[in-house]
Amino acid sequence: MTEPYELTATEIVADIEAGTLTCEAVSAACAERIEALEGSVQAWAHFDRDAALALARAADKEPSKGLLRGVPFGAKDIVDTADMPTAHGSPIYVGNRPAADAPCIAACRNAGAILLGKTVTAEFAHVQPGPTRNPFNPDHTPGGSSSGSAAAVGAGMVPVAFGTQTTGSTIRPAAFCGAVGYKPSYGDFNLTGVRDNSPSLDTLGLITRSVADLALVRSAVMVLPYEALDEVAARALRVGVCRTPWWDQAEQYTQELIADVAGRLSRAGATVTDFDMPEGAAGLVQAMRDVSGFEFARVMLHERLHHADQLSQKLLNGRVNDGVLCSYEGYRAALATLESYRGRFAAAMEGIDLLLTPSATGEAPEGIDSTGNSVFNLPWTATYAPAVTLPAGTGPTGLPLGVQLVGCRNDDQRFLSAAQAVERLLDKPG
Amino acid sequence: MTEPYELTATEIVADIEAGTLTCEAVSAACAERIEALEGSVQAWAHFDRDAALALARAADKEPSKGLLRGVPFGAKDIVDTADMPTAHGSPIYVGNRPAADAPCIAACRNAGAILLGKTVTAEFAHVQPGPTRNPFNPDHTPGGSSSGSAAAVGAGMVPVAFGTQTTGSTIRPAAFCGAVGYKPSYGDFNLTGVRDNSPSLDTLGLITRSVADLALVRSAVMVLPYEALDEVAARALRVGVCRTPWWDQAEQYTQELIADVAGRLSRAGATVTDFDMPEGAAGLVQAMRDVSGFEFARVMLHERLHHADQLSQKLLNGRVNDGVLCSYEGYRAALATLESYRGRFAAAMEGIDLLLTPSATGEAPEGIDSTGNSVFNLPWTATYAPAVTLPAGTGPTGLPLGVQLVGCRNDDQRFLSAAQAVERLLDKPG
Repeated sequence: MTEPYELTATEIVADIEAGTLTCEAVSAACAERIEALEGSVQAWAHFDRDAALALARAADKEPSKGLLRGVPFGAKDIVDTADMPTAHGSPIYVGNRPAADAPCIAACRNAGAILLGKTVTAEFAHVQPGPTRNPFNPDHTPGGSSSGSAAAVGAGMVPVAFGTQTTGSTIRPAAFCGAVGYKPSYGDFNLTGVRDNSPSLDTLGLITRSVADLALVRSAVMVLPYEALDEVAARALRVGVCRTPWWDQAEQYTQELIADVAGRLSRAGATVTDFDMPEGAAGLVQAMRDVSGFEFARVMLHERLHHADQLSQKLLNGRVNDGVLCSYEGYRAALATLESYRGRFAAAMEGIDLLLTPSATGEAPEGIDSTGNSVFNLPWTATYAPAVTLPAGTGPTGLPLGVQLVGCRNDDQRFLSAAQAVERLLDKPG
Repeated sequence: MTEPYELTATEIVADIEAGTLTCEAVSAACAERIEALEGSVQAWAHFDRDAALALARAADKEPSKGLLRGVPFGAKDIVDTADMPTAHGSPIYVGNRPAADAPCIAACRNAGAILLGKTVTAEFAHVQPGPTRNPFNPDHTPGGSSSGSAAAVGAGMVPVAFGTQTTGSTIRPAAFCGAVGYKPSYGDFNLTGVRDNSPSLDTLGLITRSVADLALVRSAVMVLPYEALDEVAARALRVGVCRTPWWDQAEQYTQELIADVAGRLSRAGATVTDFDMPEGAAGLVQAMRDVSGFEFARVMLHERLHHADQLSQKLLNGRVNDGVLCSYEGYRAALATLESYRGRFAAAMEGIDLLLTPSATGEAPEGIDSTGNSVFNLPWTATYAPAVTLPAGTGPTGLPLGVQLVGCRNDDQRFLSAAQAVERLLDKPG
């Protein structure tokens, strides 16, 4: 039997609706799971069992049936919450208590979801990791910067958590932790109350256990009427296999995984073709570095001027330094490079439902000092395109692998429908 | 003799550098001016004379020579400040104390500027006005939503103040209050720590007494090396006179003012031609309404859900209602309309240094219930182009009039140089 902590959000809502589960029971099951595993996983920056269960009990007494009724969730600790601290993964903000819930939190709570706590983030959503460990092997990174959110969903602590992505901070950790991850089209999810990293690139993301849950939570976050995903047959899919210019950085088993999934899609009747990224892909790396550096160095001004001794060397020597070195002309040129690439990418996606590409170079690397390589995430952040990672088996050391799907910008509902067709194919024996 | 409170930022920095003025003396002069006029103007949401003068005295002891050393400034009360409350013009946020200075504040303070206080904003930078009155006639609006910043600069209380613009909230109030106003190219000024209104349109702006000050403060805000504006001869200017599709909403004296300034430019040797806005200008109004509505309704979620009784009817029935009525498809279509218009506008600006167009329909209207009509500001927010308003005499009831100049997007330094040439022409007898 499936334990309550293993359910998807969609299943939780249905069970509560059917009267076979209560909000309290599912939150209590998640809380128990957190307490059992938190010592080794360390996914949470803030978790108050009693406060969370009080919210769940109150929800059981509410007559209203929200879209996310009773769904426990977590939020990366750069997302403002009125009743919990928001520390941005930095000693500078220990105990910081924002005046309001970010709209994404307010929206989910209003839809009936229960915020269990705040999840560990890399320092200011950059690269200096927090204490979180991979739930499948504590000697390995969970990825980052949405480390805690990915580990919490992967460990069965919550079915839904918010991450953010400026380069690869949602997709990569979700893949490393065996979860479904989603970076929406840039601009779709409101970022008010979410700490800026690089505003031209920042995207609020979701980590869940199913594609159906992405559509459900997306609707709540965007305050739009919920529409279930269309049922798309695998044979109707037009898939581009995108090896990217960084293919040689993918482990051989990652390359084989992509080939295997492409083969499954082909055997299921999908139209599978090779997709070459439009000209200029290699230039995206420096352009992303210039844009995120220029912006992050300015976002961090207060902390750099007044709390420099509490900032990590990785932060100061990383994106901040990139930004200090980048001129205004360099920044504008980099923005122009990205914008022009977006146009070429959109044109190249004509007639394609989704791309199939690695979620990461391989399994989560050993050690928790680094959050891993984001080269397979960077192009899709640059293009503003929606991306999903789906769990797809395990690697040589038994850690989860993901495959990444990329869709057409601003067509997320259709993209998620297509992604769900791939998800179903992956659930079947190959 | 010019009193210290009448100096521009550029003059203040030079006088302090020369040793003929102290940081304390200029801040004290501004404080005195505030205390003398605040009873009638009501520009300030927060002003603490002793705290401000303590900062100024400390600055006098600092050996370092910042770009803005000793320059008193104000900030619209939607900009986060660590040592002053930030109430967003709403009873919901009375006493709210952010954890950090917004980068724009941190940057100016680091350059040596003295933050005197927070200026009154319309509720959440929308349209419900605060108590501020026009410094030239208390029976008239100062404009909005950057009401306090415009009134404070216009009244001689500070030489520099931050505003923001989502439709016309910097340019229009600056014009109504006889000040210089500047809306930079979208994206240039970092908005971290500034309350969102409609993120796809929000721009941090400046209100000052001269174009040279705009360049000075721009450099500090953007943390870029300062370059003085090029000296541009009026005869080298290529000016487009842009009447816009809303010309008949301009008062006759506004139409005559534009004709008069165009005549001066022409007599000074500038190339002056009529500029017709590219096709589709009329559609910008609804597109802006859909974009700002969709986004603002979501930005305001926490307050709508938990503090609806403390929100004005103007806010709920205005932009929030626009957003509730706008579908996702309508929103995306409106974004696409704006983006495509931006491309056509940029093409039409080829070979033109700046447009000359009204800053507002006319003088500041009587009454303080409305902040005035923003139809002459909306297109330039929509196009992401930089805009400046320059004081240009007075209207029939003796209130200030402005003329608006619009430049090429992301070419603000060159645009400001051209605007300075126009400013010099306006200073001379016609």
